[in-house]
Amino acid sequence: MTEVRQKAMLAKEAAPLLAKLTTEQKNEALRLMAETLVERQDEIIAANKEDLQRGEANGMTRSLLDRLTLTPERIAGIAEGLMQIVELPDPIGDELERFDRPNGLRVHKVRVPIGLIGIIYEARPNVTVDAAGLCLKSGNAVLLRGGSDALSSNRAVVSVLHDALARTDVPRDALQLVTSPDRASVDDMLKLNGLIDVVIPRGGRSLIQRVVANATVPVIETGAGVCHTYLDETALPDMASDIAFNAKVQRPSVCNSMETLLVNRVFAESHLRTIAERLRGAGVELRGCTDSCRLIGDAIPATEEDWGTEYNDYILNVKIVDRLDEALTHIRTYGTMHSECIVTENEGNAQRFLLEVDAAAVYHNASTRFTDGFEFGFGAEIGISTQKLHARGPMGLPALTSTKYVVYGSGQIRG
Amino acid sequence: MTEVRQKAMLAKEAAPLLAKLTTEQKNEALRLMAETLVERQDEIIAANKEDLQRGEANGMTRSLLDRLTLTPERIAGIAEGLMQIVELPDPIGDELERFDRPNGLRVHKVRVPIGLIGIIYEARPNVTVDAAGLCLKSGNAVLLRGGSDALSSNRAVVSVLHDALARTDVPRDALQLVTSPDRASVDDMLKLNGLIDVVIPRGGRSLIQRVVANATVPVIETGAGVCHTYLDETALPDMASDIAFNAKVQRPSVCNSMETLLVNRVFAESHLRTIAERLRGAGVELRGCTDSCRLIGDAIPATEEDWGTEYNDYILNVKIVDRLDEALTHIRTYGTMHSECIVTENEGNAQRFLLEVDAAAVYHNASTRFTDGFEFGFGAEIGISTQKLHARGPMGLPALTSTKYVVYGSGQIRG
Repeated sequence: MTEVRQKAMLAKEAAPLLAKLTTEQKNEALRLMAETLVERQDEIIAANKEDLQRGEANGMTRSLLDRLTLTPERIAGIAEGLMQIVELPDPIGDELERFDRPNGLRVHKVRVPIGLIGIIYEARPNVTVDAAGLCLKSGNAVLLRGGSDALSSNRAVVSVLHDALARTDVPRDALQLVTSPDRASVDDMLKLNGLIDVVIPRGGRSLIQRVVANATVPVIETGAGVCHTYLDETALPDMASDIAFNAKVQRPSVCNSMETLLVNRVFAESHLRTIAERLRGAGVELRGCTDSCRLIGDAIPATEEDWGTEYNDYILNVKIVDRLDEALTHIRTYGTMHSECIVTENEGNAQRFLLEVDAAAVYHNASTRFTDGFEFGFGAEIGISTQKLHARGPMGLPALTSTKYVVYGSGQIRG
Repeated sequence: MTEVRQKAMLAKEAAPLLAKLTTEQKNEALRLMAETLVERQDEIIAANKEDLQRGEANGMTRSLLDRLTLTPERIAGIAEGLMQIVELPDPIGDELERFDRPNGLRVHKVRVPIGLIGIIYEARPNVTVDAAGLCLKSGNAVLLRGGSDALSSNRAVVSVLHDALARTDVPRDALQLVTSPDRASVDDMLKLNGLIDVVIPRGGRSLIQRVVANATVPVIETGAGVCHTYLDETALPDMASDIAFNAKVQRPSVCNSMETLLVNRVFAESHLRTIAERLRGAGVELRGCTDSCRLIGDAIPATEEDWGTEYNDYILNVKIVDRLDEALTHIRTYGTMHSECIVTENEGNAQRFLLEVDAAAVYHNASTRFTDGFEFGFGAEIGISTQKLHARGPMGLPALTSTKYVVYGSGQIRG
């Protein structure tokens, strides 16, 4: 039996025990996990050093090395994240609907855990703790498969968390880490129907596409974001500039940052040059349609491929459009249904955009950067779903639950 | 380009138009569809005759031929089904949540259509109309792939519905029927990521398993039901007998009927014989564990395979258990998480069962046959989900929707 299947079976067996725990039992475990991480930070940091040394030897980029690094401050931050999960309301047992039927049946729809959640992710070891904490609070067992670059760190972290759980009512087996570094272990996970109830990939586009293409278990797609900001004819120039600048520059590496700026022709003629200068001043490379290249000068012509690319970088496509419909068509063609924004003072255009653009989050006069579980006030985020089933947009704890109909009768039979 | 891809593209293009329609525009189309079906029943019945003749020539069983047959009465019933969908509340645009953020952003979570729904089903041509109506009311385009046995009927029905739609605001292209009879067209459908937002298979286990194993688009699993009824020590004998009898005999061919009766030993010693006689009197074949075979006599020993089989027939497994935990373990091992029932007067045991059994619907003192969209009062049913994501249990119109966050700002940017 493969490591993955064996650990999935252990976790699956633990799932019903976890589902029965009270909120206080789960919170107690979260607190102890947070404490133990800090107490035993030295062994985690030592393991992390192994990963960093291996990464350096393998020529890992500076920014990836930085994301991989654990320090006492970062571990304190990770522990603090667990304490924030303690504060979140427990979704399990919430009654979502209740209806009494004419035959006397009383039907309650209640939230229950999903069961066993598989999470496949890349370099950052903080995801290990974060995902473990969110799954625990929502009553789910979890099978984690982190990137091989962080394997030593993840092993150390999970070993510490296991020791913490051993002192609580949470079964240790509810938290499992796949340690086999070969990619076959990912493919195995994706086929464990009957054991894994859902797989959530967290990472770049190629990881997500691989999961979607190969999984037979249900998947929640996260992340990929080719987000647009459309500056309409009546946009207020300063607001338009601020929103576009923020959506691109405030943190270009994340999925809710802007990749393409669409600009109404009339607005462009008066204001695009200024906005382009501001973006360039922040180091943004501009790639434009023919008209925008002419208007702003020095822009590189954007290729067909560019319009569909999630740069996650200081690069921005710019396109001039004649009317709202052209913007809507562009977004339908190249967008990934993540986050889309219109800046306008025209209420009718705003309403059309908000109604017709098919995306997880649509904005009128605000930066797409707000698509985020914390910014939405969920207090947590397991990812941002870009699919339409189950959960769409930032996923908080309720996205990690299912439901069950509990029916109370007094001998009813069907006629 | 394959027929499937071409039709999916047409439907996908129609989807945004459909999403914008008002409730009244959709209802008007449903009414006209119902009227036109009745007006043009002769051509539908003529096409249906072709299917029936082919079916007879191919040796189709009497019960399948019956399910395939369309008569004026049945067409009237199908049209009446559309009129019932008119009466259902339109879920699109419903505001599910609203929260204002400290920075002044106003966030609304609203229901939106899923987009393009693929439905793969077997013989009965009524599903064609039913699925078209439910998808239309929920603002979704639909790509239908019915069984090849009903192809002439389905063609005729869709042709009539298209003519009806041509006189309404609903784009004809929003309703598509795959007419290619080869199975490759199903496999094609399952890989149309980016075009089809979800596939719902409606049919037997082998169809569903094929869809789950091959789909890269999201799937909602429906139907398979190995359902149990557990008669506890303190069950009232008459109630227990009535519920067990109803769950097995009232309509054995459906997914929410009982396949295995679990009986507490003490209760079994006093009452199982009587219940077994009653079931046998209705033509039910009993297959038992060693102890139940001894107690009721003449039962066939159940095999390991039997415990996991959805008979959908007048066959029932019977197992005697010593305590509730044994029943829970049996259900966890062999159940399909569809519908499970405990009959007991012991409130504590009832609560444990309802909490610990992981199924779409759990019952205390009522027949599992109630797991049904109409019995739950939803007024419609596109299927019964046995998976945990998106929808679980009977699926009414809201199960055919997604959500979108609509965010109103006044120039907010992220700090």
